[in-house]
Amino acid sequence: MKVSDKCELCAGPAGTLLWKHELVRVVLVDDPNYPGFCRVIWTEHIKEMTDLPPPRRAFLMAAVFGVEQALREVLKPDKINLASLGNMVPHLHWHVIPRRIGDKSFPNAIWGKAENEGQPEPLSKEQIAALKKSIEKYCSVLNH
Amino acid sequence: MKVSDKCELCAGPAGTLLWKHELVRVVLVDDPNYPGFCRVIWTEHIKEMTDLPPPRRAFLMAAVFGVEQALREVLKPDKINLASLGNMVPHLHWHVIPRRIGDKSFPNAIWGKAENEGQPEPLSKEQIAALKKSIEKYCSVLNH
Repeated sequence: MKVSDKCELCAGPAGTLLWKHELVRVVLVDDPNYPGFCRVIWTEHIKEMTDLPPPRRAFLMAAVFGVEQALREVLKPDKINLASLGNMVPHLHWHVIPRRIGDKSFPNAIWGKAENEGQPEPLSKEQIAALKKSIEKYCSVLNH
Repeated sequence: MKVSDKCELCAGPAGTLLWKHELVRVVLVDDPNYPGFCRVIWTEHIKEMTDLPPPRRAFLMAAVFGVEQALREVLKPDKINLASLGNMVPHLHWHVIPRRIGDKSFPNAIWGKAENEGQPEPLSKEQIAALKKSIEKYCSVLNH
């Protein structure tokens, strides 16, 4: 399996681990402006989606959509944002971001201009536990 | 089929049409800073990926990955960026953006801080024709 010594996503979980499979993991990102911001990280050090064979692309996307479904179920955001950029860390990963009207940069991308002030409540322990349970529910199909 | 009167993606192609299917279309975005920037737009006015049943999600992603593959083949970018945001236009669409080291905002997201000056060469007619042909090649499987 391809691993890079210099890659922070190869080095460790890079967030609070919510779900793990041999091929992929889901972590909660520590960003106070976007509670519930998750990353879906491919285990192998691969750069682009189309570096993966189509069945593996489908597998990774099923995990991404599982996380989207769980975030919608638990947090009921106004919008979901999905992105795979990797310009700084060229190790395949997806941002799955629950957005709220009035959050820091809404309606811009979270990488764009700040529009709003104030900080949202962090997720409670109960919400994190519910999110974990919901991700397990929607991603468990990937274990079979 | 769900259509919205107020939606610019329901109203017209919203870019130079490169490929079209009943369910989805691919357009070239007119952004001089990012030549080759494509959008893959779902025909129906739907908000989130998980509003679609799983086979339709897979269909749309196959088109997105077909465009990624074509952009890599024709333009050989340094990185591909994929994103489905829809905060401003809640009609399901994907940005497929060929990135180059030194482009306007590299290594930031294109929605982030500008880092570099100067403007790249626009795509030539020949490059646009090659891109169209390559997208047709990689997306034609969706016609069967």
